[in-house]
Amino acid sequence: MKIEIIAVGTELLTPDFQDTNSLYLTAGLNAAGLDVAFKTIVGDDPVDLARALRTALGRAGLVLCMGGLGPTEDDRTRETLAGLLGRKLVFDPAIRREIRERFRRHGWPMTASNLKQCYVIEGAAVLPNPNGTAPGLWLADGRRRVALLPGPPRELRPMFEDHVRPRLAGLGCGLMSRRVIRLTGLGESAMETRLKSFYALVPPEVTVTTLASPGDLSVWLTYKGPGPAEAAAAVLDRLERALVRRVGSWIYSRDGADLADVVGAALESRGLTVACAESCTGGLLGHRLTGRPGSSAYFLESAVVYANEAKVRRLDIPAELIARHGAVSAPVARAMARGIRASSGADFGLAVTGIAGPGGGTPAKPVGLVYIALAGRGRVEVEQRIFSGGRDNVKFQSSQKALDMLRKSLMTLPAKVL
Amino acid sequence: MKIEIIAVGTELLTPDFQDTNSLYLTAGLNAAGLDVAFKTIVGDDPVDLARALRTALGRAGLVLCMGGLGPTEDDRTRETLAGLLGRKLVFDPAIRREIRERFRRHGWPMTASNLKQCYVIEGAAVLPNPNGTAPGLWLADGRRRVALLPGPPRELRPMFEDHVRPRLAGLGCGLMSRRVIRLTGLGESAMETRLKSFYALVPPEVTVTTLASPGDLSVWLTYKGPGPAEAAAAVLDRLERALVRRVGSWIYSRDGADLADVVGAALESRGLTVACAESCTGGLLGHRLTGRPGSSAYFLESAVVYANEAKVRRLDIPAELIARHGAVSAPVARAMARGIRASSGADFGLAVTGIAGPGGGTPAKPVGLVYIALAGRGRVEVEQRIFSGGRDNVKFQSSQKALDMLRKSLMTLPAKVL
Repeated sequence: MKIEIIAVGTELLTPDFQDTNSLYLTAGLNAAGLDVAFKTIVGDDPVDLARALRTALGRAGLVLCMGGLGPTEDDRTRETLAGLLGRKLVFDPAIRREIRERFRRHGWPMTASNLKQCYVIEGAAVLPNPNGTAPGLWLADGRRRVALLPGPPRELRPMFEDHVRPRLAGLGCGLMSRRVIRLTGLGESAMETRLKSFYALVPPEVTVTTLASPGDLSVWLTYKGPGPAEAAAAVLDRLERALVRRVGSWIYSRDGADLADVVGAALESRGLTVACAESCTGGLLGHRLTGRPGSSAYFLESAVVYANEAKVRRLDIPAELIARHGAVSAPVARAMARGIRASSGADFGLAVTGIAGPGGGTPAKPVGLVYIALAGRGRVEVEQRIFSGGRDNVKFQSSQKALDMLRKSLMTLPAKVL
Repeated sequence: MKIEIIAVGTELLTPDFQDTNSLYLTAGLNAAGLDVAFKTIVGDDPVDLARALRTALGRAGLVLCMGGLGPTEDDRTRETLAGLLGRKLVFDPAIRREIRERFRRHGWPMTASNLKQCYVIEGAAVLPNPNGTAPGLWLADGRRRVALLPGPPRELRPMFEDHVRPRLAGLGCGLMSRRVIRLTGLGESAMETRLKSFYALVPPEVTVTTLASPGDLSVWLTYKGPGPAEAAAAVLDRLERALVRRVGSWIYSRDGADLADVVGAALESRGLTVACAESCTGGLLGHRLTGRPGSSAYFLESAVVYANEAKVRRLDIPAELIARHGAVSAPVARAMARGIRASSGADFGLAVTGIAGPGGGTPAKPVGLVYIALAGRGRVEVEQRIFSGGRDNVKFQSSQKALDMLRKSLMTLPAKVL
């Protein structure tokens, strides 16, 4: 059975409105083992609204439609759906009593426009709305089911929980379970090539979705089947192992966690600390490492040494080293990592220097050229990369590479037994 | 002519993904005087995708469809549209050359899966993608027009600006013009109270939208009418002045610019420099100040002194000052701002120390308590705030307050005559 969510409202078609209601409904549907196939946003225009509803009734077995149940002229969802189904609107005196009572409690007069809200589609069940005047409706038409829900979140959410969710039981087909595997350092098409033989292993009850952004890849494994939970877990475990065999060295998390949080947890569990020396990332590395609560346990400091004088002054990097190799060079990255490690007393020194662009590039040192260095016990490693994308992307990918170098180094060390 | 935006991707049908691309496209369409009638989100399932595309072709004269152009198995937008229109897919050697060249520059091998991206729908114009491997397509079918665009924002946005926007000329009717006024330091309801008398001045051709997030407010003034451009500008100018009279001291930009960019431009135009000392912001202040190209002209460095030892070592803050007042205190904030200014040689020293939470609060010093200090010529000012929201919000609001203190100080100084 396909499911469609429709959000009605002209304001939802402007550049500044996010439809967060549908995310809420999606979470609730997923929890009941139901997947959303289509989401539609349509304005108050009655012709467009009728088109959108007709389309949904044609392709979905369950339609959740929100908005357009209010008292004003441009609220027409009820009337439009009744017309499409060839059903009458019937006056419901119980709704009038409730609206009247609600207005009396607030000391407001009930207006004529609210009378509109007392009409229900013939044969529909009324879904009470304790937080507003617009009642919801639930109706079955052959094998299709339609819910009309109010748009304001504080009315929609309780109505969904109390009156829609119980009606979903039996509609779902078993269980939905998702695992998110995250990778860095591998391009999307390179991953695809390595996963060619993986797709053949995927059973029909699992959907594989890959998401790529510069410096980050996610593979979503979504199980949808009869269950039980142990069976779903076994299928996902098997696919996860198959992924690990093919692209394991690029995987940094198997539960959707962010790379900075993975690194933070790995430092914490080993009782180790890090300090950073940042040039082109401008503080992003420190910002990401301090995004996790309790980060003061492992993050000591970051010297954001943007100007060359700051590199010399803060990290004791010889001015002649910068003069000889340039600030964006492997020797300077190495000296930055060593310098911050030594002066902070941290277990690891992590350094980034590069050209974020769009200006400042040369043929020998193009925009996107970045050196990343990690100083640990007794050794310093340096990597060179040329990242593409704009300034933000170069900064992000640099921080991602730095965090991943630290992660790999940590993986070779045992976690403390707590 | 009706317009529809389709976003393709199974991940967009999950509870965690916001479709922000369509907001960007909507803004661009609006600017060309074009309104969006339908927005659809559909997953990678080929049957559902075909249904959604067929519906859009039936009800809209212009369809912008994004996503599903990548190299992976589940990217099928191109093939599906070709099938619906009864057109062939044709191999385009120029695209292969470009992808190959792109991979060569990065030193990656071109993979077989990228070959898929070299096929274009017969009769379509290829929209170049300098930021990724997936080219876009633009095609006319009778009176209908369809654009296929890549999903990643950094690929989509430039392609829309450079290759779709020029093709929209002549499709719109009338003029749409928008001005975005941004404020910080004022709550949404406090602003609403101050704007009571403002709303009466707004003519019917202008829509006012306010957008609030912790530490930031935007007021969008959208003109939609017959034009000409001068008439729209005059109306928006008048409303902008009315806003300035009511909430002028909280306004930091009148063209939608971000606060960090406003501060960066103000420093640059005055030939002045800043250095930061950050504790709870963890590097966010430096990250934001280095987000603008050319920031090395005014941003010297940031000492992210998370550990107390780092505060003492890097900024010569007396350990006894920290012991007496605590690291989160006005005296320490003041010493941090003075210390970084003196040791960096910058014109301004900007410092933040606070408790980002969720742990670390006490009755006397609750989570969200932050001190922000600005050291300039001959004086140091300190402000105390208690910010609410989670860790991210406390960090962001702290950086916002720090930047705004610097902005206000800069506004009292004349810009250099260039």
